[in-house]
Amino acid sequence: MPDPIDFYFDFSSPYGYFGSFKVENIARRFERPVNWHPILIGAAFQETGNKPLIHQPLKGEYCANDWARMGRFMDVPWVLPDPFPIATHNAARLFYKLDGRDPGLAKKFAIAAFHAYFGEGRDITGAQAVAEVAAPLGVEAEEVHATVQDPAVKEDLKRRTAEAIGRGVIGSPFVIVDGEGFWGSDRLWMVKKWIQKGGW
Amino acid sequence: MPDPIDFYFDFSSPYGYFGSFKVENIARRFERPVNWHPILIGAAFQETGNKPLIHQPLKGEYCANDWARMGRFMDVPWVLPDPFPIATHNAARLFYKLDGRDPGLAKKFAIAAFHAYFGEGRDITGAQAVAEVAAPLGVEAEEVHATVQDPAVKEDLKRRTAEAIGRGVIGSPFVIVDGEGFWGSDRLWMVKKWIQKGGW
Repeated sequence: MPDPIDFYFDFSSPYGYFGSFKVENIARRFERPVNWHPILIGAAFQETGNKPLIHQPLKGEYCANDWARMGRFMDVPWVLPDPFPIATHNAARLFYKLDGRDPGLAKKFAIAAFHAYFGEGRDITGAQAVAEVAAPLGVEAEEVHATVQDPAVKEDLKRRTAEAIGRGVIGSPFVIVDGEGFWGSDRLWMVKKWIQKGGW
Repeated sequence: MPDPIDFYFDFSSPYGYFGSFKVENIARRFERPVNWHPILIGAAFQETGNKPLIHQPLKGEYCANDWARMGRFMDVPWVLPDPFPIATHNAARLFYKLDGRDPGLAKKFAIAAFHAYFGEGRDITGAQAVAEVAAPLGVEAEEVHATVQDPAVKEDLKRRTAEAIGRGVIGSPFVIVDGEGFWGSDRLWMVKKWIQKGGW
């Protein structure tokens, strides 16, 4: 089994959404598995002193335009959701719960959650909203509600987010492959080159 | 004459340095002129609440590694200069003075200044340092010293920086082509596509 590509993101990150398509394309090309790691990027922002792009004067306007043209360019569904950004702990908690028993199912859920939020503009903050995203995958609403309130699951997400920050994850998306970190959807071309050449 | 590519940057910006190679390649390919616009990015940072990458916890370390590998990847000279970042008003003032009488000379000076600072690690903050960069281009040290202290030149740079911010320039490098803005050295691939396709 070749070494995996670690893909860190927040479900509320537009560049994480765009990056999720690109990283899977790279993985397929090089026959590498991708491990998806949803985290709470707000915790990383606290470390770096950053804040959401949309809340930064001028940058917010630039980014709104950039996301729209990126969606058109990549030919993937895009709407700027309202509310935006959102808290994504419920979606992330369910992801890791599913990941524990079926990583394939967890990734399907992550793709569905990204699509619901950025492809259709559906709010995915609350447990009920998350349950609606997971329902078509055969996940019972009861399991979702129990999961997002489970203290062990909460603790697990905190630990994973702290671990990501400890590995140098400073934004979303962030990719680590073969020990090297790459920040940003715009930097995934370099991940491709890095794998191809074995670094340089 | 085809419409120009406006290339905004700060002489103290590593991604501006890397971007300067890329933008000239794009311009050559599409036979577009590039207008170089050094600005004082600190003024834009005041508007956006941003600060230099190197002063941001975690991001600073990430970027130092990123610049080094970018230099290796692009096969262009790179050293992380000390001091870094620096004030670049003297270099920018001289640029515009030269630009007024010979745009080609101004661009040669800009390339030389970037090379001195990021290629050789020479401080280009002071008027004397700027004069040493300009000397091989036939610019007299006296002119440099007079230029950087000239109130009209100072005012001109302020005005140009404000004008850039007014056009939406929020970082370095920033490219505006055919009315569309693109932020970041990593985004220059999109400039290429945008010119190729006439937008999308």
